[in-house]
Amino acid sequence: MRQAMHRLRIATHGKGLVPFTHDVLAWVASTRIKMGVLTLWCRHTSASLTVQENADPTVLEDIKRYFEALVPEAHGRYIHDDEGPDDMPAHLRTMLTQTQLSIPVADGRPVLGTWQGLYLFEHRRHPHQRDIVLHLIGE
Amino acid sequence: MRQAMHRLRIATHGKGLVPFTHDVLAWVASTRIKMGVLTLWCRHTSASLTVQENADPTVLEDIKRYFEALVPEAHGRYIHDDEGPDDMPAHLRTMLTQTQLSIPVADGRPVLGTWQGLYLFEHRRHPHQRDIVLHLIGE
Amino acid sequence: MRQAMHRLRIATHGKGLVPFTHDVLAWVASTRIKMGVLTLWCRHTSASLTVQENADPTVLEDIKRYFEALVPEAHGRYIHDDEGPDDMPAHLRTMLTQTQLSIPVADGRPVLGTWQGLYLFEHRRHPHQRDIVLHLIGE
Repeated sequence: MRQAMHRLRIATHGKGLVPFTHDVLAWVASTRIKMGVLTLWCRHTSASLTVQENADPTVLEDIKRYFEALVPEAHGRYIHDDEGPDDMPAHLRTMLTQTQLSIPVADGRPVLGTWQGLYLFEHRRHPHQRDIVLHLIGE
Repeated sequence: MRQAMHRLRIATHGKGLVPFTHDVLAWVASTRIKMGVLTLWCRHTSASLTVQENADPTVLEDIKRYFEALVPEAHGRYIHDDEGPDDMPAHLRTMLTQTQLSIPVADGRPVLGTWQGLYLFEHRRHPHQRDIVLHLIGE
Repeated sequence: MRQAMHRLRIATHGKGLVPFTHDVLAWVASTRIKMGVLTLWCRHTSASLTVQENADPTVLEDIKRYFEALVPEAHGRYIHDDEGPDDMPAHLRTMLTQTQLSIPVADGRPVLGTWQGLYLFEHRRHPHQRDIVLHLIGE
């Protein structure tokens, strides 16, 4: 049994979902670990992880719109607003989605379903560099 | 240290929560791994996993109703609607719950609390066959 | 490769977020495992786990308010109400946040980002003793 670790840095372009499945598949393959469990950790409180349909891009647009309505940016609604009107909604949207995902690995790849893609969900208006730590244990 | 993997196939009957704690307990026991960590992965983007009270069935009915209101099916609300009015809400409800759960195992069983049950949450109207991958590492 | 397990008991004081990052860091350090993956499991259906900003306490107050509005306590709204008006909202708030977190460990500590803190989110009105199980595998 052995383990491997990696840092993925993802550039975001303001609010929205950035796919990164291919980076994860490539790194898992490079470790030559065939069976195990992969853990992804997003090191931020205003960006999060989600698993979503990888086929139709309108799904991503609907997700963006839905979260705008579910956690509205609104002046005066939040006490914590000195980092901008998008900051507190960003924290809440992060809480409602995932900071972490663990995925079993078989035959050298995560067991994602056919339609499942991995996305970083940027919740801030401005572009950011986001860090995701990948950890794999297995053999 | 060793690991084991298993695929659980669960039949759903339209929207609602399907308990599967017993299948998980039985498989973990069958591996004879006494201490470790169990990972469950749901291979879909319109069904999800959740941990909920296992005692009163009205809890499950309230959950169903709450998610109907939180993510409404509504014609014209979503861009992505060619797979039916329940498809985009299914993706959003999946995002708001879990695709994955990792549970420590002690004395040969997951350390669930007394009132915790594992449920598959089907978000589509029609019955489906859903795949959950189970991975256990430990000794 | 080896593993360690621990139970953390956290006293809550009614609704709100209780930080417990320091307890986790101290236990991980005590195991002397340098690299691995840490899993936290909350053994309850009316308290949950979340990762949030550890700097400004008003963030915690905004979170509390937001969840009061997102999942309102309201007489007559839920079928399941014999355990009090805060019980069914507690279950739903648990579903919308996390019961479990897995965090890679490097150099003997979880790879939390600078602003990330671990919180137990108590959803009931009355104080409770809450159990979190910690599992660490690595070397």
